[in-house]
Amino acid sequence: MENEQKAIYIGLLGMGTVGSGVIEVLNKNAEDISKRVGAPIKLKKILVRDKRKTRANVDTALLTDNFDDIINDSDISIIIEVIGGIKPAKDYIVRALNAGKSVVTANKDVMSTSGKEIFCAASENNVDIHFEASVGGGIPIIMPLKECLTANVITEVMGIVNGTTNYMLTKMTEDGADYNAVLKEAQKKGYAEANPAADVDGLDAARKAAILASLAFNTRIGFDDVSVEGITKISPTDIGYARELGYVIKLIAVGKNINGRIDVRVNPALLPTSHPLASVNGVYNAIFVRGNAIGEAMFYGPGAGSLPTASAVVADVITTARNILRGSLGKNYCTCYDNKPLCPVEDTKSSYYVRLLVDDEPGVLGTIATTFGESGVNLKSVMQTTREIKNHAEIVVITHLVEHRKILCAAEALKNLPVINVLKNIIRVENEENLNG
Amino acid sequence: MENEQKAIYIGLLGMGTVGSGVIEVLNKNAEDISKRVGAPIKLKKILVRDKRKTRANVDTALLTDNFDDIINDSDISIIIEVIGGIKPAKDYIVRALNAGKSVVTANKDVMSTSGKEIFCAASENNVDIHFEASVGGGIPIIMPLKECLTANVITEVMGIVNGTTNYMLTKMTEDGADYNAVLKEAQKKGYAEANPAADVDGLDAARKAAILASLAFNTRIGFDDVSVEGITKISPTDIGYARELGYVIKLIAVGKNINGRIDVRVNPALLPTSHPLASVNGVYNAIFVRGNAIGEAMFYGPGAGSLPTASAVVADVITTARNILRGSLGKNYCTCYDNKPLCPVEDTKSSYYVRLLVDDEPGVLGTIATTFGESGVNLKSVMQTTREIKNHAEIVVITHLVEHRKILCAAEALKNLPVINVLKNIIRVENEENLNG
Repeated sequence: MENEQKAIYIGLLGMGTVGSGVIEVLNKNAEDISKRVGAPIKLKKILVRDKRKTRANVDTALLTDNFDDIINDSDISIIIEVIGGIKPAKDYIVRALNAGKSVVTANKDVMSTSGKEIFCAASENNVDIHFEASVGGGIPIIMPLKECLTANVITEVMGIVNGTTNYMLTKMTEDGADYNAVLKEAQKKGYAEANPAADVDGLDAARKAAILASLAFNTRIGFDDVSVEGITKISPTDIGYARELGYVIKLIAVGKNINGRIDVRVNPALLPTSHPLASVNGVYNAIFVRGNAIGEAMFYGPGAGSLPTASAVVADVITTARNILRGSLGKNYCTCYDNKPLCPVEDTKSSYYVRLLVDDEPGVLGTIATTFGESGVNLKSVMQTTREIKNHAEIVVITHLVEHRKILCAAEALKNLPVINVLKNIIRVENEENLNG
Repeated sequence: MENEQKAIYIGLLGMGTVGSGVIEVLNKNAEDISKRVGAPIKLKKILVRDKRKTRANVDTALLTDNFDDIINDSDISIIIEVIGGIKPAKDYIVRALNAGKSVVTANKDVMSTSGKEIFCAASENNVDIHFEASVGGGIPIIMPLKECLTANVITEVMGIVNGTTNYMLTKMTEDGADYNAVLKEAQKKGYAEANPAADVDGLDAARKAAILASLAFNTRIGFDDVSVEGITKISPTDIGYARELGYVIKLIAVGKNINGRIDVRVNPALLPTSHPLASVNGVYNAIFVRGNAIGEAMFYGPGAGSLPTASAVVADVITTARNILRGSLGKNYCTCYDNKPLCPVEDTKSSYYVRLLVDDEPGVLGTIATTFGESGVNLKSVMQTTREIKNHAEIVVITHLVEHRKILCAAEALKNLPVINVLKNIIRVENEENLNG
C-alpha cells in the first residue's frame, strides 16, 4: 500500500547519538511514517565530519563532509540539524532557511540565543522551523505549549529538564551518597560529561528555561535572561532534612508570570512530595504547567537518549512534511507577540530553607528568629536538628513567602551574629504558598 | 494592538458545565487568544434548551433554542458541540459539517461510536473536526497522539481516564473506607452521579479507551470492541494486600498491540507503585504511552471540570481558526489508515492477583498450587495472609504472565476444590512482565 506520491527528501546534519537515532527511527518505522504523511520520507544526504569513519546501518553513498552538497540539493526540502552547539550549527540553520528549506533542530543553544533571528529567517522564506527536541528530549512540550494550551494564560512553567542532575539528586536521595561520589558514578555510566559544568551548574537547564518561558509567556526570553544556580552546594544532609519536612530536592527550570513581569531561573528547590514533579526520578524529565483554564498539567518522559530524542525530531519532520503536502508551510508562527519585562531576581518571592551551624547554647533560637524578623522574613518553622555535632547545633528554618532581597539581607545579618558559625545553605522552597505570590 | 482582521465567529451548542467554561475562557483570555490566532474569536450564537432561564455572564441576545438559527448563520464558521450524549448531538455535528462548518466537540459518546462517519463528513466538506476534550478533560492527548508521537510505532496506551472512579479508589486506598461509603461521599461532592453506573461500571472509560486505541494504533476501535470491567468488586481488603505486595489498584483503560492484534479493555489493575500512573490520585487523569522510539511518556492533568475541559475545547477552536486563516482547513486527517484485528480477551495475557478464602488446614497451599499448575498457570508468589478469619485462611496469589483463558480455566477448577470456600477476587496485574507479552 506504499503511497504513490513523490517522496519527501531530507538532509541530515550530524550523525552522533541523536543523528543515528533519527536514521534508525526513519528506517524501522518507515512504513507507518509514510502512511501518516501520505508520502515516503527519504534520507538523501548526511553531513559528517569524517566520511571514512566506519558506520553501521547507513548507505555510505549518502555521506558528505560538505554542507554545500546538501544546501544545493534541490530535491531536499527538509534539513535536520542535530550537530549541537552554536558553531557551525547556527550558520547552517540560517543558510538552510534562506535557501527555502524547512529546518528541524534539536539545538537548545541556538534556539535560546538566536530564536528571533531563526524565526525571522523561516518567516521571510515561508518555510517551517521546528525544535521539539530542544527541551525534554522525547517529551512533547513545544507543540503542547504552541497549540494545545493556547486557551490559557499561563502563570507558571516548571520543569525537571536536565537528566544528569536529576539522576544525581535521585541517587543522593535514595542512597544517601554524597555529591562527588554520585558525580563519579554518573560519569562512569555516561550520564555526565568529563567536564560536568554545563549540567551541574545549571547552564543546560537554563537554555531550556529560556525556551520554555518564551513559549509560555509569549515574550522573548534569552539564555542571558535566566538567573542560574546549580546543584554543587546540595549535600545529603540537606536532602535528609528536606525529607523529614516532607520535601524532595530537585533542580528546576522555572518561569513565572509575576503580575506581568517574568521570573525565569534555574535553581535547586525543595518540592513537597505531593507535587507531580517530586516523583520524577532518574534520567526522566517532566514539565509542569499551570494555566488559568487547565489548572495543572504535566508532561513526562525520557529527557535524553538517542531514540527518545529522535522521536521528537522525526515527529517534527512528519509535521513539516504534512505541511508541505497541505501547502501550509511557513505558518507555524513565532509566538513571542508580547514584550514583557523581566522580574529582577531580588524581587522574586519564594519560601526558603535555611540551614545554620550555631553555638549550642541557650537563647540561640530566639536570636536567630529575631534576626530574620528584623530583615522582614517571617518563619514558618524552626527546627533544631538531632544530628550530633561537637559543641554545635544545627538549625533548619523554613520561611514564609518572602522577597529574595529580604532573604539576602537576613543572610548577611545572620553571618554577622557571633552565635552563627556557618550559614550552611539557602535553598528555595516551591510550595503551595508560592501560588499566592 | 487588536488585530484588524475580520473576527472568526463561533456557534456554541450547550451551556452546561463545559459550555459555561468555554464562555468564561473565551471572555477572560480574549486578548491573548486574539493575538495567538491573528483575529478575534467571537461567540455569535448559543443553543440552549430554555432561553428564559436566568444565566449570569452571557448576553441573552446570543441565546437561541433553535439549531437552525446557528446552522443557517453564514457568519459562523466553527461550531462547538458540548451537549454530550448521542441524541441530538451527533445529528447536529453531522449537519454542521455538511453545512461546511468546522466542528469542535467534547463528545466521547459520538466519537467512540460514529468516528468514521464524522471524519468522512469533515473530509467531504473540507472542514476540520477536533475532539481533544473527549479524553482526559484538559490534558493534551489527542494532538500529541496525532502529531507529536507520530515517529513511533505505539505498542501500548494506558490511561486513568475516569476521575470519579480514581477519586473513589484513591479514597479507599488512603482511608481504608469501603466501596459504598466512598461512593456516597463522591455523590455528595458531585463527583459521582445519582446513578453511578457509567463511571463505576467502566463504560465512560471504555469510550475513551476506544478513542485512544484508534489513535494509538491507527485502526478504528469502537465502544463495542472494548471489554469492560468496573470497580464494584474492589474491596479495601484487596487494596490492602496490593499495598503489602508493592502495588496500587487503579481503573485503567488499556490498548495494546499484541503482534498486530489489538487488545483493548477497561479493568481494575494492580500497578507497581513505581509505575508513573500509580501516583495519579483523586480526580486527576493521566495517559501513559509506550512507543518504539520514545520509550515511555505520560500526560497528566485534570480529567474533568468546567475550565479544564474548556481549555481543551478552546485550544481546538484556536487550531481551527488558525487553519481557517492559513487556508489549510480539512487537512487534519483521519489517522485510521489500518485495519488491525482485535485480540479476543481470552487470548490477552496478564499477571493476575487471585484472592481465595480456604479451609484452614494443612496441605491447602499445595493443593491450590497444583490446581493452578494443571491449568497451565505458573505462580510468582503465594501468600497466606495474616488476617484472622474464623476457621478459614485467606490466600493471595500473584501469577506469572498467562493467557486470560488459562486463568478462567484455573478459576473454574479452583471453585470445584473442596478446600476452597470462596474465590474472592481475580484482578489483572500490569507489571514489567507484561512488557514481554
